[in-house]
Amino acid sequence: MAPIITLTTDFGERDGFVGTMKGVILEICPGARLVDISHAIEPQDIAGASLVLQAAAPYFPEGTIHLVVVDPGVGTERKGVALRTPEATFVGPDNGVLGLVWKDAEARMGVSNIDVVELAQPRFFLPKVSATFHGRDVFAPVAAHLALGARFEELGPVVSTLHPSPVPEPVPLDDGGLAGEVVAIDRFGNCVTNLTLEDLAAIAPPDTLRVELDGRPLGPVRRTFGDTAPGTVLALIGSGARLEIALCNGNLAESSGTGKGSRVVVRSARK
Amino acid sequence: MAPIITLTTDFGERDGFVGTMKGVILEICPGARLVDISHAIEPQDIAGASLVLQAAAPYFPEGTIHLVVVDPGVGTERKGVALRTPEATFVGPDNGVLGLVWKDAEARMGVSNIDVVELAQPRFFLPKVSATFHGRDVFAPVAAHLALGARFEELGPVVSTLHPSPVPEPVPLDDGGLAGEVVAIDRFGNCVTNLTLEDLAAIAPPDTLRVELDGRPLGPVRRTFGDTAPGTVLALIGSGARLEIALCNGNLAESSGTGKGSRVVVRSARK
Amino acid sequence: MAPIITLTTDFGERDGFVGTMKGVILEICPGARLVDISHAIEPQDIAGASLVLQAAAPYFPEGTIHLVVVDPGVGTERKGVALRTPEATFVGPDNGVLGLVWKDAEARMGVSNIDVVELAQPRFFLPKVSATFHGRDVFAPVAAHLALGARFEELGPVVSTLHPSPVPEPVPLDDGGLAGEVVAIDRFGNCVTNLTLEDLAAIAPPDTLRVELDGRPLGPVRRTFGDTAPGTVLALIGSGARLEIALCNGNLAESSGTGKGSRVVVRSARK
Repeated sequence: MAPIITLTTDFGERDGFVGTMKGVILEICPGARLVDISHAIEPQDIAGASLVLQAAAPYFPEGTIHLVVVDPGVGTERKGVALRTPEATFVGPDNGVLGLVWKDAEARMGVSNIDVVELAQPRFFLPKVSATFHGRDVFAPVAAHLALGARFEELGPVVSTLHPSPVPEPVPLDDGGLAGEVVAIDRFGNCVTNLTLEDLAAIAPPDTLRVELDGRPLGPVRRTFGDTAPGTVLALIGSGARLEIALCNGNLAESSGTGKGSRVVVRSARK
Repeated sequence: MAPIITLTTDFGERDGFVGTMKGVILEICPGARLVDISHAIEPQDIAGASLVLQAAAPYFPEGTIHLVVVDPGVGTERKGVALRTPEATFVGPDNGVLGLVWKDAEARMGVSNIDVVELAQPRFFLPKVSATFHGRDVFAPVAAHLALGARFEELGPVVSTLHPSPVPEPVPLDDGGLAGEVVAIDRFGNCVTNLTLEDLAAIAPPDTLRVELDGRPLGPVRRTFGDTAPGTVLALIGSGARLEIALCNGNLAESSGTGKGSRVVVRSARK
Repeated sequence: MAPIITLTTDFGERDGFVGTMKGVILEICPGARLVDISHAIEPQDIAGASLVLQAAAPYFPEGTIHLVVVDPGVGTERKGVALRTPEATFVGPDNGVLGLVWKDAEARMGVSNIDVVELAQPRFFLPKVSATFHGRDVFAPVAAHLALGARFEELGPVVSTLHPSPVPEPVPLDDGGLAGEVVAIDRFGNCVTNLTLEDLAAIAPPDTLRVELDGRPLGPVRRTFGDTAPGTVLALIGSGARLEIALCNGNLAESSGTGKGSRVVVRSARK
């Protein structure tokens, strides 16, 4: 059975750009199994795409090829790259959109198990490469050729590093706490932070932590929405293993001033 | 050929939640054929999801597995269930979202042909079940195991009843008419009611009925939009076999005060 | 391997109409490979659908079946048709939605290679055809029967002409220039015109042309966004081989009065 190719873009659903990429893929690799991750990334939101990809990719089977096209620099000198881990392959522009999956892969599997190449072999592209739609002309055909069996090493020369994700890192505080911020809002108005479960666990067991949102205490990290009363603002570990701030039975982002950039601090309650 | 699994959720297209569920399914059942019914159900709109599922499910082949995740009670004590009819299997939370397909199945095929079980066997779930995303951790893997051949009876203990759909029932009037209401607005602004073709046929042949919208007479039930002049408000049987109120060549919901809850009455014209 | 069937509609993602069509297709042709092109065509926007289809279809493999349902005239006397070229088959209402692919096919492959039939054989429809949803009851089953191997000639009688696309034609100017207009806005706010690369090449090599937007000179046709400074309004050949007007690093449609109908003139700079 041919590999899965996932697609994550900021192309929206309207203009047929995603369908066009799928036509290109199926022309090259007719049996590819295509799965959309998201095409509603905000236009040119590299950070948002890197977060969505990081949350979804671990749930796909080994050997999945993840195609990511959020590409404000198309037509400039930014490189196209492919990243291979023991679990999956990622194809997209080198602008930070692969930053989080790259960092995770190095942390979990070791630098020596991770390979990155620049996409430099036009024989894996469409015959005519436009200046404005490399998703169709470069990235989709490369992903399809990989699905068909092209060797990763053939794609182009090895690259030693990638652009990091633009998602900001949390900042350790003098009192042992950790200061983060809201970096994404989900469909339900839940505010996702740059504080991962691992970041929290490095301070203290998460259920012993106390959380502040823009200086306002929210109490402990809860297990789920049902652990508080409707209308309560709570902190919990979301499904993507990040600290989230939510409104029980409501939409926090719409009903408050909380949004991207809102400051979230965690501290051990034992102090 | 592996079964079809359909997906109906309120997850939207942005955050990658649906793609994540598909990754989980394809890991367990690599050949599953995945079809999206809707992911634009309003957040936590159980009634809306039950209507969409009821309209779409009959058009899928026998043996299709319908996965439905509109789940405001995730992490609480609400049960996960599976419903099996001679035609299809449905998997989702027991919160009313399966209420209409369950009622239809019992009416058409008889109670003795319908089976319901509680999802109680963790061996069909992901190894780690979060408190906030049972679509990924419980419902998607259960659907995938069914597609792979797991026996329905193995999923858990038999359940004798399900939560009904929150869609309100029509109310018989003393004069022989039937009072219903608008329960959904479609993409084109057409207002779908809780009055089914069967409800109407029980009063009189539908083409002999007269319709009122919020007390205003709309005339007979029409066959199609083209049977009136542009700009006319008309009643017709929509593609989902429900009475709909529409604006010929226009968007009724946007151009009038008609919306969810607007009262629609049908009466025989013979009286 | 069964053919690809693509779907282009104005049905949106919410109501399950598209999923229902896919259920119908897979009941008839279980192995069909389904690819969405767009379901976010503006309601009843025949011109918009014809443009999206024209841009996407050439990137699909030979033998693809393109199903297009933007159908304001459903239930009236408008015909359903199928169009066959040496490359692909198209199925939809005869209302102009197939006008651009038809014109392109005749221009590139010759009238004698193009066949059009009216959909007149109810054995290729669902047993019960509603008055409001021919996408489900007529067009989807016809596409599925074609994918399964039905002969094109069996669908119905030959038709000699189709409705043209409502996209307006450019107008030659007395001074040798060509006057066009904006006919679509894409996801990124880029304004797509009715001036094709071929139209431009017939005047002079495109890189020697000068462009005016509503009387304002924009300079030459650029190769890509990166050829100007951020904030500049520029003209370039878009990925669909049409002249587009864009704002470098911005959304032109949102940040200016440019929209559908804005006048765009090209002239040779040599004069």
